[in-house]
Amino acid sequence: MNWNRKSLLAVEDLSPCEITFILDQANSIKNKKNQNLASGSLSGKRIINLFMEPSTRTRVAFEIAAKSLGADIITVSGEASSLTKGETLKDTAMNVQALGAHAIILRHSSPGSPLFLSKIVDVPIINAGDGAHEHPSQALLDIYTLRERMGDLKNKKITILGDILFSRVARSNLWGLLKLGAKVTLAGPTTLVPKEFEKLGARVTHNTQSALEDADAVMLLRIQHERQSASHFPSLAEYAKVFGLGQESLSVMKKDAIILHPGPLNRGVEIESELADSDRAVILKQVSNGIAVRMAILDLCINNSSSKNHE
Amino acid sequence: MNWNRKSLLAVEDLSPCEITFILDQANSIKNKKNQNLASGSLSGKRIINLFMEPSTRTRVAFEIAAKSLGADIITVSGEASSLTKGETLKDTAMNVQALGAHAIILRHSSPGSPLFLSKIVDVPIINAGDGAHEHPSQALLDIYTLRERMGDLKNKKITILGDILFSRVARSNLWGLLKLGAKVTLAGPTTLVPKEFEKLGARVTHNTQSALEDADAVMLLRIQHERQSASHFPSLAEYAKVFGLGQESLSVMKKDAIILHPGPLNRGVEIESELADSDRAVILKQVSNGIAVRMAILDLCINNSSSKNHE
Amino acid sequence: MNWNRKSLLAVEDLSPCEITFILDQANSIKNKKNQNLASGSLSGKRIINLFMEPSTRTRVAFEIAAKSLGADIITVSGEASSLTKGETLKDTAMNVQALGAHAIILRHSSPGSPLFLSKIVDVPIINAGDGAHEHPSQALLDIYTLRERMGDLKNKKITILGDILFSRVARSNLWGLLKLGAKVTLAGPTTLVPKEFEKLGARVTHNTQSALEDADAVMLLRIQHERQSASHFPSLAEYAKVFGLGQESLSVMKKDAIILHPGPLNRGVEIESELADSDRAVILKQVSNGIAVRMAILDLCINNSSSKNHE
Repeated sequence: MNWNRKSLLAVEDLSPCEITFILDQANSIKNKKNQNLASGSLSGKRIINLFMEPSTRTRVAFEIAAKSLGADIITVSGEASSLTKGETLKDTAMNVQALGAHAIILRHSSPGSPLFLSKIVDVPIINAGDGAHEHPSQALLDIYTLRERMGDLKNKKITILGDILFSRVARSNLWGLLKLGAKVTLAGPTTLVPKEFEKLGARVTHNTQSALEDADAVMLLRIQHERQSASHFPSLAEYAKVFGLGQESLSVMKKDAIILHPGPLNRGVEIESELADSDRAVILKQVSNGIAVRMAILDLCINNSSSKNHE
Repeated sequence: MNWNRKSLLAVEDLSPCEITFILDQANSIKNKKNQNLASGSLSGKRIINLFMEPSTRTRVAFEIAAKSLGADIITVSGEASSLTKGETLKDTAMNVQALGAHAIILRHSSPGSPLFLSKIVDVPIINAGDGAHEHPSQALLDIYTLRERMGDLKNKKITILGDILFSRVARSNLWGLLKLGAKVTLAGPTTLVPKEFEKLGARVTHNTQSALEDADAVMLLRIQHERQSASHFPSLAEYAKVFGLGQESLSVMKKDAIILHPGPLNRGVEIESELADSDRAVILKQVSNGIAVRMAILDLCINNSSSKNHE
Repeated sequence: MNWNRKSLLAVEDLSPCEITFILDQANSIKNKKNQNLASGSLSGKRIINLFMEPSTRTRVAFEIAAKSLGADIITVSGEASSLTKGETLKDTAMNVQALGAHAIILRHSSPGSPLFLSKIVDVPIINAGDGAHEHPSQALLDIYTLRERMGDLKNKKITILGDILFSRVARSNLWGLLKLGAKVTLAGPTTLVPKEFEKLGARVTHNTQSALEDADAVMLLRIQHERQSASHFPSLAEYAKVFGLGQESLSVMKKDAIILHPGPLNRGVEIESELADSDRAVILKQVSNGIAVRMAILDLCINNSSSKNHE
């Protein structure tokens, strides 16, 4: 297949073929099969890492991925307000393009902002998280990690457990997993897992045991204090008791079911500490795989796009 | 001509020949005529980007310019107070020099601080904006852009419109334009455009129509809320009405007069949105040209200075 | 000798041979004898500069040292709380390792945190300051500077004057100097120089004249307002009068005794301005030497460690 997508805005946009293609590319990179990529396929390219919402790990992961491909990456981070001094997002993007960027990686609190930018500027836009909408690179690394352990995801049962309502990670994973033929269960408190998600093709449950018992993998989500306008459950302790994973959850789960978490971990809330450090959890593999997956995304979007070179 | 200036402190210091030389160098870089520059003329050099006043765009533009020439650039940014923990600016600069910097790019809120530093340290000092005094790289990119569109600036009529009093951009442009033989009009509210500027050789007017009608180019300035100690005009809306540029301004202006703005734009204040996006505005060209102009400045000051190599 | 230490956690851990070896390596680097090092001995290596406590100069010095050896260095800085969003330090380090770091440089407010990390992750940990515990790279550059001026430190008399109690710089220097056979005097206000330090092998005095009169070198410490939970002396003016160095101190001191200070200087407090700028002070030499010393540290720990390559 030929990749001909310039921007990566949302997993919802991708065909199953495109998802598989990115994951295969990432695999070549991880296994060093792809010598071209290993030796600077983005040499001479300039990437602007535009982080208008605080982030450390996604920002650093993209920096490492870009540098590993030989690109220059310049991070511009801070609250949108101080960055732009009242300037519109459009003007910021036009300016970044005028500075000669070959791609813009955008983290922004407004859902849809990467799409908006992609219509304005000629250079590739990589969505690094837009509000509660999507976080495609995170979902792709999650799916890469699932596939690495479980092979073909068709008909595999994946449970996403936690704060679905406010989670861009959950949304992106839901789209990606359904496109690859997996069966997805969304679980968590009623306030955080609305029945409406069934319309997208997922099973919704508020019963943890039911969510865990036939899952091949359980994807935990971080309780996002900062994104919740009001308290959606009585207390962290109660959340942990009802929806947190612990050693006793293993008796309910399939023997080889694995556990994912996008980090940072709230140990003792979403998952007990001991379980997080056990073989069942692939949390650190997700982090490592994130470099290869982001290298694949950057290489595909920048090298295969038809955007002019903005020297 | 031979360049033998180590630091770029102020456009006021430059001879017309020197200004023209920088602009010609920038032009060679932009048009890739100068292969030496294109391929790392500052390879192995270490530049410290010392930003003691918040800035995003000038900082990033210098970072890109330095990296494009093959230099290592390390940005040290933050409020002066937290950066220096009570240390004097002199000590900070001596320390940066002792760290092996081959040049220091300085943004500081105190007028004259780059000059002060240049007397203390041996390495080139590039003024990236010192209070309301000068912002030479901005003015040189503005003048580059004017020259690119209008050719020789001798006897060309340039209007600078807005907050002249607090604007280092206006001061640097005024010096540069006068040195190249342009006729400069300074316009804006009486509170922001004192008659005293006439002594420097500019025409001063507080009548927008008079300022626009025979201008070959109009340079707008950003309303700098942060630099004004008190309110100098009744309201933004009133400013926009009296001194902002809009479609109806075009009927007053010459048919091919162009519009410049250093950014970030306050759309609807200094200029109407539609006009800012029209062919008359060269705002994004200014941004692009800024990279070539800053590459020329860094190359000339660092490579042609007699400063010892501080390895 | 062969270097076989993976992490640099504390000068207290080092043998006299190891200290001498680092200093000799730094000397080769400074004098460009070591061509291997000069030309990118850490090329392709990725270093994470994890600064969980604000710092500018140590951070930048490590950045320059790492880049000078050809490494990629990515700084992650900020308050621990905002960096980690409640994540444990262990998890942060595991994540950084999973991102493919070949070494972690850690600045943290908790004493012992680098040791703690070194037991968890496989990659080298370089302590860039842990609370009031140690700051080994600073002490090694101080000792390098002393040795450069005074030769063998055996039986040389070194006075450390100031806020010993809260100073990681003093602790690291004390260990290093004693190991190399120097005689160390700790001096300052009774509240900041407890008698207990005598148990470590130092002389303790609260009399400035006694501390200065037979010293071959005087190492001043910065008054660390930020690290003191309460005021330990009446006022800065009184401190300066009793414990600050001035021209009149020279009449007490040996004729060729030198003065060190880790910076940033509080001119007029720890030392009079004129004296700080005189030949007696080697403050800027310390800064310059810090690059070579940190290059030696990074090269030894990363290249000679048995840690697996975490690509």
